[in-house]
Amino acid sequence: MTNWRERARQEMDQKVKPPGSLGRLETVAIDLAAYLQTLEPRVARGRILIFAADHGISREGVSAYPREVTAQMVKTFASGGAAITVLARSLDLEVEVIDVGVDADLPAMPGVVAAKACRGTRSFLREPAMTFEELDAALAAGRAAVDRAVSAGVETVGLGEMGIGNTTAAAALLSALTGAPPLETVGRGTGVDDERLAAKREVVAASLRLHAAALGDPRSALAAVGGLEIAALAGAAIECARRGRVALVDGFISTVAVLAAVRLDPSVRPALVFSHRSSEAGHDRALAALGGTPLLDLGMRLGEATGSALAFPIVKAAAAILREMATFAQAGVSTES
Amino acid sequence: MTNWRERARQEMDQKVKPPGSLGRLETVAIDLAAYLQTLEPRVARGRILIFAADHGISREGVSAYPREVTAQMVKTFASGGAAITVLARSLDLEVEVIDVGVDADLPAMPGVVAAKACRGTRSFLREPAMTFEELDAALAAGRAAVDRAVSAGVETVGLGEMGIGNTTAAAALLSALTGAPPLETVGRGTGVDDERLAAKREVVAASLRLHAAALGDPRSALAAVGGLEIAALAGAAIECARRGRVALVDGFISTVAVLAAVRLDPSVRPALVFSHRSSEAGHDRALAALGGTPLLDLGMRLGEATGSALAFPIVKAAAAILREMATFAQAGVSTES
Repeated sequence: MTNWRERARQEMDQKVKPPGSLGRLETVAIDLAAYLQTLEPRVARGRILIFAADHGISREGVSAYPREVTAQMVKTFASGGAAITVLARSLDLEVEVIDVGVDADLPAMPGVVAAKACRGTRSFLREPAMTFEELDAALAAGRAAVDRAVSAGVETVGLGEMGIGNTTAAAALLSALTGAPPLETVGRGTGVDDERLAAKREVVAASLRLHAAALGDPRSALAAVGGLEIAALAGAAIECARRGRVALVDGFISTVAVLAAVRLDPSVRPALVFSHRSSEAGHDRALAALGGTPLLDLGMRLGEATGSALAFPIVKAAAAILREMATFAQAGVSTES
Repeated sequence: MTNWRERARQEMDQKVKPPGSLGRLETVAIDLAAYLQTLEPRVARGRILIFAADHGISREGVSAYPREVTAQMVKTFASGGAAITVLARSLDLEVEVIDVGVDADLPAMPGVVAAKACRGTRSFLREPAMTFEELDAALAAGRAAVDRAVSAGVETVGLGEMGIGNTTAAAALLSALTGAPPLETVGRGTGVDDERLAAKREVVAASLRLHAAALGDPRSALAAVGGLEIAALAGAAIECARRGRVALVDGFISTVAVLAAVRLDPSVRPALVFSHRSSEAGHDRALAALGGTPLLDLGMRLGEATGSALAFPIVKAAAAILREMATFAQAGVSTES
């Protein structure tokens, strides 16, 4: 069996540059070669998948924005005025938005796929966020989105989300999956003040106590304190790994979702490239649990796959280096003296 | 007089996202608006300028690679196999290479402009690197390259260089411009071992003693211990500022060159966007002298404008955010509750 990682490393060291001088471009390219089993990784056609859903927990005073913003933002994605749609145009990426559980009757819109598992989760401060049937429907919606992308010839999938209340769900899920206390996993999200941050921590702590029996298993933890878009992101990551496509992981919520995916299926890990270090409090904890180091650190905390989009040209460039750069021998350049 | 910075800041805070949640994309966009005096900055057409020259100091045992590599790399740029040419193709950037002092008779090559000030500098361990006439020719070559780019409709210029020995010249110049000792400004360049690093530091220290009388003035410091490509980079930065074009600054050598440019003409500073934090030792010192924070930190240390190229899509995206993103009012999205 070919050791693609070793072959790629040797090839990279013959390229016409001092060894290691392209830093993370080299390690990303070698990771891509090992994952895709080729010295000519192709990742240049990218599609952003944004999973959107509502959260029962958003009714417990944890969010800076009202619940209806989820549906309003889906419409803004469709009309092209959101941050991610602007970035996608600038960076030559396709965008698909998947409604996996927005609590609104959304009209048919171009670029928006209707795949509601239900109209938002229940408040996990009081009961499980979703049933296992709803969880399975959300996981399937994530897998189906990747399946559509692969059928369309997409080589790289950028994961992202929209859902008022979802930093609270992601924090609870991260605590469930890692045992980290809410103090380490709960942050300000889109920007709650000190008072609401304290309330948000208490909500997560109480929820973890309520669902303690369910938290030992990633599937039941997802159902207890997860979100529909979080489950869909996990399903999407699982399908990327199954189909041999790279999954660019966005910020805090997407990272927690792929952590759940890796807990469900460890073979997902090599498919993941971490894009951006979010300034949301718990992101470093989630990255540490996955051994992931993001490519970018631009102080962003928006979600919507904005980090995935901005990391895309770097991943594309890394693959191009391995595929297209000349070796010292090919270029006729003298090596170290 | 319109305060474009303030107008851009207000506009950015009305975009449909939590305030500040796009981090450096927001600050870069606001900087662009202030510099270009518009809320619709246009930076999407980019050209990489690589200035190449040889260094007399490379004969003093300071480099990991032989001197002839400079000319060989210019040929590799022209044939498209170098790192920067691969990145430029991947990232949709034009490339122009300017021979401002390669010590070889280069044949005419597509994409390479002949503008030799002389065939490499003299060894500044023994005498001034260049005459003021040679310095002026190199500065003019830099300005002319930007002039060609502007005439061709280029909106953003990515600066970079190639020149065996040029980390030594840049370290000496950085020490001259800031007073920092060689211990802080001299690094491993393309990869010298401990022994050669110590020798390189001694060469720089001795050179600074030799030229002490010339180091108080940026122009005479450039002539004494600079390089032809370093002077050309300074000239290019000056012309970018004069013509209202953004200059993306690459790693250590380019940053020292634009520091010299800012010392020659402080109005250059607003034209500069710092692209990548090099792992070369003195880069942070040079950045600190300019108050610059790079967009990327990918562990690279190659030069060739590789950092400028990789930062280009981020700058383009930042401008697109300001220009194209909808406001809360336009999108009909509820603001904070």
